[in-house]
Amino acid sequence: MTRTSTDACVFIHPTAICEAPIKGGTRVWAFVHVMNGATIGSDCNICDHAFVEDGAVIGNRVTLKNGVMVWNGVTLHDDVFVGPGVVFTNDRYPRSLRMPEIAKLGRTAQSIKVPTAVNRGASIGAGATIVAGITIGEFAMIGAGAVVTKSVPAHRLVHGNPARPAGWVCVCGRPTESDESCSECGRRWRVECDSLIAVE
Amino acid sequence: MTRTSTDACVFIHPTAICEAPIKGGTRVWAFVHVMNGATIGSDCNICDHAFVEDGAVIGNRVTLKNGVMVWNGVTLHDDVFVGPGVVFTNDRYPRSLRMPEIAKLGRTAQSIKVPTAVNRGASIGAGATIVAGITIGEFAMIGAGAVVTKSVPAHRLVHGNPARPAGWVCVCGRPTESDESCSECGRRWRVECDSLIAVE
Amino acid sequence: MTRTSTDACVFIHPTAICEAPIKGGTRVWAFVHVMNGATIGSDCNICDHAFVEDGAVIGNRVTLKNGVMVWNGVTLHDDVFVGPGVVFTNDRYPRSLRMPEIAKLGRTAQSIKVPTAVNRGASIGAGATIVAGITIGEFAMIGAGAVVTKSVPAHRLVHGNPARPAGWVCVCGRPTESDESCSECGRRWRVECDSLIAVE
Repeated sequence: MTRTSTDACVFIHPTAICEAPIKGGTRVWAFVHVMNGATIGSDCNICDHAFVEDGAVIGNRVTLKNGVMVWNGVTLHDDVFVGPGVVFTNDRYPRSLRMPEIAKLGRTAQSIKVPTAVNRGASIGAGATIVAGITIGEFAMIGAGAVVTKSVPAHRLVHGNPARPAGWVCVCGRPTESDESCSECGRRWRVECDSLIAVE
Repeated sequence: MTRTSTDACVFIHPTAICEAPIKGGTRVWAFVHVMNGATIGSDCNICDHAFVEDGAVIGNRVTLKNGVMVWNGVTLHDDVFVGPGVVFTNDRYPRSLRMPEIAKLGRTAQSIKVPTAVNRGASIGAGATIVAGITIGEFAMIGAGAVVTKSVPAHRLVHGNPARPAGWVCVCGRPTESDESCSECGRRWRVECDSLIAVE
Repeated sequence: MTRTSTDACVFIHPTAICEAPIKGGTRVWAFVHVMNGATIGSDCNICDHAFVEDGAVIGNRVTLKNGVMVWNGVTLHDDVFVGPGVVFTNDRYPRSLRMPEIAKLGRTAQSIKVPTAVNRGASIGAGATIVAGITIGEFAMIGAGAVVTKSVPAHRLVHGNPARPAGWVCVCGRPTESDESCSECGRRWRVECDSLIAVE
């Protein structure tokens, strides 16, 4: 159990296992395991029972709520929110690698890995499952309990199993519509060619 | 790691972190974290890897199966059963609070909090997700894997994503219908005005 | 916290609680709890935050990814893959056993237990929920986030909530169709009487 940091202002709970460097302002809570080889930015909040695998890449100001698991192959860009109990994946055809029929194919954790990206400012609601190989766009919002099987454009709200489009959300997270000012932050938006565009 | 209790007959596993008082008859299992400021009644069973946040309120004889997370804003009344891997929420428009665009709005964990209540004797099936701001009625039953987005009346069975009504359940948890005696406990019920009413 | 093994080549992370014997080649990772009375085979991989209850039976070369909980009543045969955050169950009408109305019925954890079996080589995708009392057939594939309420035949792919048939998969996990050679491993299959049959 190695604990390293590049800044004094980090918090690592005594029960957490942090094998990777933790940057300034990042807090790591109880029973978390960050593996050696994970990359985690500054000012993150990594809550109880979370797990970050070797090779996972996490930007700055990211929130990982309790029990979130982030695998090698998953990239979370700056300001992403990942709700409690969200499950990422990095394999589309999972089999036990030690099964004799699989072992003889020479599959490895590396060879089966499919990348997933969550772009800046996006939020993933509690209990959602993210199938490997997709991109979640900037400021998109994944509804609680959704099972996301396809890429999600920027600012899109999706929910359900499988997840389907259900509206648009503002930078601040509130639902918004075309030619409307956001009730929370005042930004104005227009829907054009199936995209949400900021109105100057 | 403070361990306090108001009664000798409590069990706290040596790996659990209990920062709040634990009342008589309550058992707290391995790798659980109960934060300072949580309220937990007597004769509860809090299973491995569960998490109870500051401000959460849990009554007497409540079962929290493994990995359940209960947030500030969530109230679980007496005799509630929460299945393994159930995820509560307390925020309807989640964003990372440290995102610059959000930080300038002055949002705090407190200001975004939306309350959720689970009334006496209700059960929440394994792997269900409970969206913030709803009430689950007495003796209701949430099916395994359901995503609950609306309040659920007393004795209602719901399942699916989103969760929809799928029958009625007796106090003892068995499915029941109008003018039927429960096969398990013998209680008699009548459906009236979309409610399940006990027949004397 | 007792740690026992029948072979030198086991790995048990220092934070894991292993109360049952661990066989040769099996690895048990951080914050795992294996209860006394659980049965676990050789060459398994039991990842962080997993839980194996007294009475659970797990074969050889089984993968339990992070946070998986396996209860008394659940049998996982050889070469099964269980994805991260998968939740099993062992009770169809859950109520808090200490609720006065339930306590007087004399229900016990043992009396309510309903068995579940996962047969050799099957895979359960991330975040799936498995309702008690079913059998998942050999080499079946449960899609990520599925809620499985009925038994699944051998080689069947299912997904959704509730889970429904969505094709067939080869031994190696790849989707396959009638009269096709598997693109990954070359096996040939035929669909007959709603079963996938190997073509010699």
